[in-house]
Amino acid sequence: MTDSARVQDVLRQLDAGLEEALDRLMAFLTIPSISTDPAHAGDVRRAADWLADELTGLGFQAQVHDTPGHPMVVARSQPGDARPLLFYGHYDVQPVDPLELWDRPPFESAIEETPAGRVIRARGASDDKGQLMTFVEAFRAWKAVHGTLPSDLILLFEGEEESGSPSLRPFLEAHADSLRASLAMICDTGLYADGRPAITTQLRGLVGQEVVVRGADRDLHSGSFGGLAANPIMVLAQALAALKNDQGRVTLPGFYDGVQDLTPELARDWQALDFDAAGFLDRVGLSQPVGEVGRTPLEMVWNRPTAEINGIAGGYAGDGFKTVLPAEARAKVSFRLTGQQDPEKVRAAFQDHVRSFVPTDCKVEFHDHGTSPASVMDISDPAFGLAKDALTEEWGRDAAFIGAGGSIPIAGDFKQILGMDSMLVGFGRDDDRIHSPNEKYDVESFAKGARSWARILSALR
Amino acid sequence: MTDSARVQDVLRQLDAGLEEALDRLMAFLTIPSISTDPAHAGDVRRAADWLADELTGLGFQAQVHDTPGHPMVVARSQPGDARPLLFYGHYDVQPVDPLELWDRPPFESAIEETPAGRVIRARGASDDKGQLMTFVEAFRAWKAVHGTLPSDLILLFEGEEESGSPSLRPFLEAHADSLRASLAMICDTGLYADGRPAITTQLRGLVGQEVVVRGADRDLHSGSFGGLAANPIMVLAQALAALKNDQGRVTLPGFYDGVQDLTPELARDWQALDFDAAGFLDRVGLSQPVGEVGRTPLEMVWNRPTAEINGIAGGYAGDGFKTVLPAEARAKVSFRLTGQQDPEKVRAAFQDHVRSFVPTDCKVEFHDHGTSPASVMDISDPAFGLAKDALTEEWGRDAAFIGAGGSIPIAGDFKQILGMDSMLVGFGRDDDRIHSPNEKYDVESFAKGARSWARILSALR
Repeated sequence: MTDSARVQDVLRQLDAGLEEALDRLMAFLTIPSISTDPAHAGDVRRAADWLADELTGLGFQAQVHDTPGHPMVVARSQPGDARPLLFYGHYDVQPVDPLELWDRPPFESAIEETPAGRVIRARGASDDKGQLMTFVEAFRAWKAVHGTLPSDLILLFEGEEESGSPSLRPFLEAHADSLRASLAMICDTGLYADGRPAITTQLRGLVGQEVVVRGADRDLHSGSFGGLAANPIMVLAQALAALKNDQGRVTLPGFYDGVQDLTPELARDWQALDFDAAGFLDRVGLSQPVGEVGRTPLEMVWNRPTAEINGIAGGYAGDGFKTVLPAEARAKVSFRLTGQQDPEKVRAAFQDHVRSFVPTDCKVEFHDHGTSPASVMDISDPAFGLAKDALTEEWGRDAAFIGAGGSIPIAGDFKQILGMDSMLVGFGRDDDRIHSPNEKYDVESFAKGARSWARILSALR
Repeated sequence: MTDSARVQDVLRQLDAGLEEALDRLMAFLTIPSISTDPAHAGDVRRAADWLADELTGLGFQAQVHDTPGHPMVVARSQPGDARPLLFYGHYDVQPVDPLELWDRPPFESAIEETPAGRVIRARGASDDKGQLMTFVEAFRAWKAVHGTLPSDLILLFEGEEESGSPSLRPFLEAHADSLRASLAMICDTGLYADGRPAITTQLRGLVGQEVVVRGADRDLHSGSFGGLAANPIMVLAQALAALKNDQGRVTLPGFYDGVQDLTPELARDWQALDFDAAGFLDRVGLSQPVGEVGRTPLEMVWNRPTAEINGIAGGYAGDGFKTVLPAEARAKVSFRLTGQQDPEKVRAAFQDHVRSFVPTDCKVEFHDHGTSPASVMDISDPAFGLAKDALTEEWGRDAAFIGAGGSIPIAGDFKQILGMDSMLVGFGRDDDRIHSPNEKYDVESFAKGARSWARILSALR
């Protein structure tokens, strides 16, 4: 039997078993594994156990590892001579407040018929139980057809993703030898906006900084001191305003070191996406891109670094008016990084920049709020091209390599601690309402998601 | 008897009557005329009645006028052929919270012996009952010596100064004909910092503006939109930062129209004050003037206009970090005006300036928080020189014409509604703790204050 015929068998197996697979997911979704709420700690463990039992039943060697927080589930298939792949997902879910906005109890999972097709309705349906079950079901069908699981798989499921993953990095460090693979498959992303299948191959990094400028030791009357005494709000406004020039470029010395233009291949892929910048902005009440002159909107959010002020406060900002010169002003600033930008250098350049605006009798202090480099996957690895072809085949539309403007910390952790790139593939949609009431996951995403993994596995095994 | 001999008689009369005068002030101070607290409305009226009774007893035609708020007390002496003078004061007082920080009940007035001399201790001792009684006692002594009150005096006392004077302008407008004089004497100011007698001859004006910049119709994720979508905090920071250049000058077109340099006479007076800018700043934890390059510190706060940001808010400024691009940012900005600057033009120039920074798909709105021109008294009016000489004589130190960085709205109202300048003379001291617990007024201020008015009256009558 040819490989291609085997794939078809697995796909048929998946199709035939869809309703049973949905039943399994429905059962998984009834467990209220809310990781931020200590009252649900037992439920989180129950979800870990449920998953470990499923995997054991499939023939994986599965183990529930205790951590200082919620457990990690690690499972492995039989060793072989294939390149090892790590699959990552998380079995914890977001809280459900405000409960009164749900049309049904969030953990009484159900399949609903909607004008747009069947959907799986429950907290966690899309983020991330439904998504992680796409590859679990692909493994199950594979085994039914091939008689054994694909070899050399490592599965890692965490239960703290929705509460900041405090145990993840220590766990990766402690188990680096047994978790190291040649590529991580992360199923926590979505289809491209128009429903096209996509592999996210680059993520921006982040430098978060809080800056506090202090002047006088008390709020001053602006009549008595205005024009004479330093005004921390003005000092801060001038420092922040000068972060960008009139071309929309960040002015910090050396800021663009390591930033790379798109390869012709990616430029073509992104061009083909026909990104509707006007529509993207229109949905939030805006109409014009305001970023770097000469860059396309997709470059602005995916491949160009930026500086943004996320918050600012100082003086009196309530009702009415107080003519104070405030004692201090503060701002939260974040830099999104791309390519090989060095977060430490960006942070240092920012601090130097701000200091240059601060009069000698004022003080400035900085608080770190995280630094992470950009994640740029090596798409010359043949796995990326094979996965792209598999997705194209399954969805009947050209799959795309895309970027993401935000960070997915796990991808950085895998790179930094385990030395491996991540392939980010997922089947969520923009209207899945993850983190919100009435979360859903399309049955089509679930079914074709599992079929997509079967095709990808087949190409890589 | 010569005029000069008559003055000496009045001064002797004041000295001989000091203890009785203090008793009267003590009685006045027992009335808790807190104008902001509706529970004290009856006390405020009682203070008005007390004052009207005192003035009637002295031979004034005194009347308590109802207003929509607290009453106005108006009194007049007999008509004559002297230039009419209006004396202004207020008989209401600040609230007393926090009560537990007072060393004695705030309305159980007392004379206390302190290492620095005798002080009158009570809420209102300095602001403004003690001060207004300085001229009432001068009138009393004048009458005792001359047999009649000085002619052509109008006294105006309000009971809402500590609660924003809502009834004042309507009252001035309704009674303009009977209140108009050739000069107003306002006794709500203090001695110069070093205890030197002073006449405040110029006050800065004010334009207060709140500006709100709105971008998207919701807070955006800075990963998804950063670098593409307008950030209202950055728009606002850039607009505000550009209000001043690196010389400390305000950049609005036409901003300095009407600003005048000091006359040689005032420059000499101010120079002679030996203003201790370092000490002034040191008391609030600062060390260096940061205003306009090439200007003295006193010019910066008294004779130069400025722009100050009094408050700013936008995005997330609490604990931790949220990578939002906020939907809006807001700031409160005030301009202090000098000379003949036109507040309306400044306001319009500011709004034009901000609008020039706002992308077309963002919105900006402005809220007015008051406009008042600077008050610059015509010190070529001989009354100013005569009063200055009288103060110099009484205190044994050169009296000075000084400025004030803040506004005293009543001076602007007198100018605008009644067409008259104000002479601002008072005897408060920096350590009087007005508006704070343990307010006091030096007996020396009270005694020499009354003597000062006797000398000034004598010079002007």
